[in-house]
Amino acid sequence: MLEQNIKNKKTLPFDKHNRKIDSSPYTIVKDEINQVNKFIIRNLKSDVPLIPIISEHLLKSGGKRIRPTLTILFSKLFGYQYGNRHIELASSIELIHMASILHDDVVDESKLRRGKHTANNLWGNKASILVGDYLFSKSFQIMVQDDDMKVMKTVANASQSLAKGEVMQLSITNNLDVTKEKYLKVIEEKTSSLFSAASILGGIVAKQSQETLTKLKLFGRYLGISFQILDDVLDYDISSVGFGKKPGDDFKEGKVTLPVLLAFNKSLSKEKIFWKRVIEDLNQNKNDFSETLKIMKKYHSLEESKKIAETYANKASEILTTLPKNSFNETLKYICEYVFQRDI
Amino acid sequence: MLEQNIKNKKTLPFDKHNRKIDSSPYTIVKDEINQVNKFIIRNLKSDVPLIPIISEHLLKSGGKRIRPTLTILFSKLFGYQYGNRHIELASSIELIHMASILHDDVVDESKLRRGKHTANNLWGNKASILVGDYLFSKSFQIMVQDDDMKVMKTVANASQSLAKGEVMQLSITNNLDVTKEKYLKVIEEKTSSLFSAASILGGIVAKQSQETLTKLKLFGRYLGISFQILDDVLDYDISSVGFGKKPGDDFKEGKVTLPVLLAFNKSLSKEKIFWKRVIEDLNQNKNDFSETLKIMKKYHSLEESKKIAETYANKASEILTTLPKNSFNETLKYICEYVFQRDI
Repeated sequence: MLEQNIKNKKTLPFDKHNRKIDSSPYTIVKDEINQVNKFIIRNLKSDVPLIPIISEHLLKSGGKRIRPTLTILFSKLFGYQYGNRHIELASSIELIHMASILHDDVVDESKLRRGKHTANNLWGNKASILVGDYLFSKSFQIMVQDDDMKVMKTVANASQSLAKGEVMQLSITNNLDVTKEKYLKVIEEKTSSLFSAASILGGIVAKQSQETLTKLKLFGRYLGISFQILDDVLDYDISSVGFGKKPGDDFKEGKVTLPVLLAFNKSLSKEKIFWKRVIEDLNQNKNDFSETLKIMKKYHSLEESKKIAETYANKASEILTTLPKNSFNETLKYICEYVFQRDI
Repeated sequence: MLEQNIKNKKTLPFDKHNRKIDSSPYTIVKDEINQVNKFIIRNLKSDVPLIPIISEHLLKSGGKRIRPTLTILFSKLFGYQYGNRHIELASSIELIHMASILHDDVVDESKLRRGKHTANNLWGNKASILVGDYLFSKSFQIMVQDDDMKVMKTVANASQSLAKGEVMQLSITNNLDVTKEKYLKVIEEKTSSLFSAASILGGIVAKQSQETLTKLKLFGRYLGISFQILDDVLDYDISSVGFGKKPGDDFKEGKVTLPVLLAFNKSLSKEKIFWKRVIEDLNQNKNDFSETLKIMKKYHSLEESKKIAETYANKASEILTTLPKNSFNETLKYICEYVFQRDI
């Protein structure tokens, strides 16, 4: 089903019974996501022009605000109606994500993101590092204004995990001596933490019990893992250009992601020598990327990675069956099914 | 008096009446500063080795913990006795400072700090950026555990100012079209904000009134400005090597600091052409630094900068006269007088 959906990308959205789905996640929360964008822009107005310039460039460079969408959808799933907390907290989560993108692109020396020039490419590493710090501290300030210790604790823990995951990822780069479990731990810290926090904040504003918040944490964990595995797969999927990805970036840096690990572990001695040269020693020649794709194809490592991603997406979806049924729940289910459609 | 103190560096500490001072700031709070160091190390234990390695390198690279010292001294000045909040909050302020040092050294491409290799020099820019983010988020987490919204607000505002000041500083680098007021605004955001927050936290743990906290904010503001001007002077003071500074770093980057501004504004046309070449165009030759020192000497820009720094230190000191008199107050007064002794 998954494979078929990816192939039928242009004819989507259809559910698994081939019924047309009306509720794209960005139709049902379109107004709120606009409010998030406006709230962020309003809060970044500054007498230091570089701050709004870089931030607005980032906001306009695409990205579908999946994290703030989770906050808004969960708040509404639980009946939150009056007030602006869901917009403000969704914005503060997105600001942390924006800060991490600015720093990531410096660390990865990325020149393009979603087909557009990265901020470090346009304004230099220094500006990206410092404006990233600014966005992170602005997020902190917005949360403090919200004045709820539960929110603060959730986001403090998520920020801590995110930063820890980024450092862990640095340690496993150029190192094929990594287990699948270690890889999963890294992406859980790096990606799931913010997905979890985004989901939990939706529950907090709607005054949900600790038991429900724990479910939301788990939902974010599973969806985040699925999302990140797919992101790592797309980096080796030459058909992914339309998704705003530029395949080969992870390869160039020697990042050890799931598709690499699965192929490496099945590789013959001769292939392992190849892997060590291109990933560990970063000694790469012109045809090495296509050689990598060949080995991955031989061992079906992209398909296997996608299957693992699908398992996690299904786990996330299962949690939704225990929560109130309504159109917001449906939309969240849709996100779990179509997380593979990276243009959502 | 000031000049004499600097010259008599080795025979200090003496007060202005040449009486020996018993209460060096680091004698009276030596135990607490040790506790701060231990608290930080304990909190940075991690299964990701790079985090404690870089952090401990930073802690061991010197620095006399002036910000945590302010928190501890003010808490004790107001009679705080039982509990550990002053240690924990002092540590969280120092963690923000450590994070900003890691990022600063990447932005400034610094190879040495206090005569020791910088973290970016030893472990690379990537590690410094990401471990910096980790320290910042750890500081946030420690504050959340302290569970006091007043603390959160104080530090959120300080972090915001610090980040804003750093971006502002980037905008005025290589730009001689900057007023003295703009320079003061930048260092107030960049340096005073954390001095103010450190001082206020000492007042908060000792349950002081808003009126007193406002005084502490002002104290930090003045002391921070004084401290930063001196730091900027030392970058052009070839006798400052013993202070752990490496003169000429700001010059190499074309940073527009007070000594540069004061000299530039008095310069003749020919000298202005020189300034524009070395500071704005960063077109620097071998003898340009000594030429810069000559022009600064001609216009007494280092002396004038120090005098301005002294004015601010005196303003900070004056605020202390309105606070309870005790040995902690004396020590704070000593810091204001001897902030010029950059090894305190």
